[in-house]
Amino acid sequence: MEARIVKVAFVGFGNVGQALARLLLSKEEELQQQYGVWVRVTGIATGRHGIALDLDGIDLKQAIRVVQQGRSLEGLSAQRCSETDEFLKSSQAEVLFESIPVNYQNGQPALDILRQALFYGMHAITANKGPVVHGYTELVQIAEKNNRRFLFEATVMDGAPVFSLFRHCLPAIRLQRVSGILNSTTNFILTRMEQGERFEQAVRAAQAIGIAETDPSGDIDGWDSAIKLAALATVLMGFPLKPQEVERVGIRGLTEDEVQGAFNRGQRWKLVCRAWRDGPRVYAKVAPELVGPDSPMYNVEGTSSIVQFETDTLGQLTLLEHNPSPNTTAYGLFADFIQAICSG
Amino acid sequence: MEARIVKVAFVGFGNVGQALARLLLSKEEELQQQYGVWVRVTGIATGRHGIALDLDGIDLKQAIRVVQQGRSLEGLSAQRCSETDEFLKSSQAEVLFESIPVNYQNGQPALDILRQALFYGMHAITANKGPVVHGYTELVQIAEKNNRRFLFEATVMDGAPVFSLFRHCLPAIRLQRVSGILNSTTNFILTRMEQGERFEQAVRAAQAIGIAETDPSGDIDGWDSAIKLAALATVLMGFPLKPQEVERVGIRGLTEDEVQGAFNRGQRWKLVCRAWRDGPRVYAKVAPELVGPDSPMYNVEGTSSIVQFETDTLGQLTLLEHNPSPNTTAYGLFADFIQAICSG
Repeated sequence: MEARIVKVAFVGFGNVGQALARLLLSKEEELQQQYGVWVRVTGIATGRHGIALDLDGIDLKQAIRVVQQGRSLEGLSAQRCSETDEFLKSSQAEVLFESIPVNYQNGQPALDILRQALFYGMHAITANKGPVVHGYTELVQIAEKNNRRFLFEATVMDGAPVFSLFRHCLPAIRLQRVSGILNSTTNFILTRMEQGERFEQAVRAAQAIGIAETDPSGDIDGWDSAIKLAALATVLMGFPLKPQEVERVGIRGLTEDEVQGAFNRGQRWKLVCRAWRDGPRVYAKVAPELVGPDSPMYNVEGTSSIVQFETDTLGQLTLLEHNPSPNTTAYGLFADFIQAICSG
Repeated sequence: MEARIVKVAFVGFGNVGQALARLLLSKEEELQQQYGVWVRVTGIATGRHGIALDLDGIDLKQAIRVVQQGRSLEGLSAQRCSETDEFLKSSQAEVLFESIPVNYQNGQPALDILRQALFYGMHAITANKGPVVHGYTELVQIAEKNNRRFLFEATVMDGAPVFSLFRHCLPAIRLQRVSGILNSTTNFILTRMEQGERFEQAVRAAQAIGIAETDPSGDIDGWDSAIKLAALATVLMGFPLKPQEVERVGIRGLTEDEVQGAFNRGQRWKLVCRAWRDGPRVYAKVAPELVGPDSPMYNVEGTSSIVQFETDTLGQLTLLEHNPSPNTTAYGLFADFIQAICSG
């Protein structure tokens, strides 16, 4: 198959951005042969490693090396650029991959970046939950108007197909209820506490393997669960919810004794997400629940996650993802990329 | 949205065909409003209730009633027809739904019927595993040549999206291994035996709720599991396998004492399907396995089923379907229908 060049730009080049870069390199041949696509990265904009712009293509291997050595990407740049809007425009990209840190409150600045990318005629692909809950309707509208796509598979359950499952495989279905364990960090912490670790120890262990932030409150206080649940309600149940509208209890209130005691009695504390229809509304709640061995949630350990869908026509369908990594999230962005360039 | 009439025909009108008929009736409004489609059933051919043909449309409610009363559909027919090929041609259908009983050995006569339907320019949609394992490559080729679709979501895991998941949501992925519990009847029987029922009692219970045939050997000897596993290997791993090529041990060798004893020791006997790559080949095996509580298979009870996919880029992804029914299978056919008529 004759391959056409597709120019792409990255905004955000942390663990996920770099994993995507490696995936694009390792799938180079499939992209060319199966999809007729040759990816050229024309821009990478980061928060701490500067900006690189080169319309002839940036060497991804080199970019990963530079960032991992803590150096600036500017040495790889063919032109100067210091501002995101100018960066987007100058990149001439057909697809933008955005993976900057989440902002639970209003989705910024990611929301503005994606809006601008769509405005410049790019497909906007994000791993960021903020713009999904704070700008879904608007971004979808702008995308449709410009005959482009706004896609975000990597935002919930890492790269596991959740949104695309409903979009492509479950036509004319009505989602009545959704429940699940959607936050890896708290699940990892609770699993360690069952083994006798203290809360603070378990948090440090999560930080050591890179799944918890220096300030882990986004996970521990349930914000990450709440924003993912809000994204599911917004997109799959057609009821826009903000994370602030989700009833939310984190895991700080659970003591080591409670967690270990429950485990010894054959039960497990899990931070469970639930959203359900009630008349015309959708309600959503994140809270610790005691789960018994008869629940599929019981065996979801460490960083694994689960989501259960109750629908009108298919009964209950459950999706389990085992031990995801940044590579998994990167695959979500990659799948969106193929979806965008092959359908738009 | 302006609706266009889509003529469809049924070959096979048992539990699944009737459930599909009810689903088409209940989703009439969505089909019209979301997809611009108005379904007109122009033919129903059955093994025991005759054939009905009417280009002006057969009343589905009446057809269900007639069949459930054990009467012949010929009273609803506008023209005489006694032969399947003539039926297909005369129906002028755009879509064929085929759901006749499975033939493990060679997929006939379903294979011929689907081939003929594609030849007449219809989309061919089946709930029948036989033609998938015995005619996949050929039927896909004929479909492509005629710009039609051969779809079969309802053949494995009932209506749960398995094939469409890989087709639409997991681009450029390589499936390395698949495992699962794919046969409801044996899983139901084993669950009853754990409660102290004898094998024959459990078989009769399965027959009483309509999940086991009068001759239950297709399930019990592992043929149903083997043909489903062969379908997964053929379609998702690109390695055509016949059920005869699957190493196959059924559940007849398991005694009540073994099953109950294992259960009392915290383990469960499950009829497990496994397929895996070994160099250029794919091997497949169906056999009873002892499963512990740490496995997601442990909690799969009664008629529920599970499938686990190990892939190169996404790690392990598991799909669980709870308590399926003929309605679930019907939804698989329905989803294929929308896929076919909306994608050309």
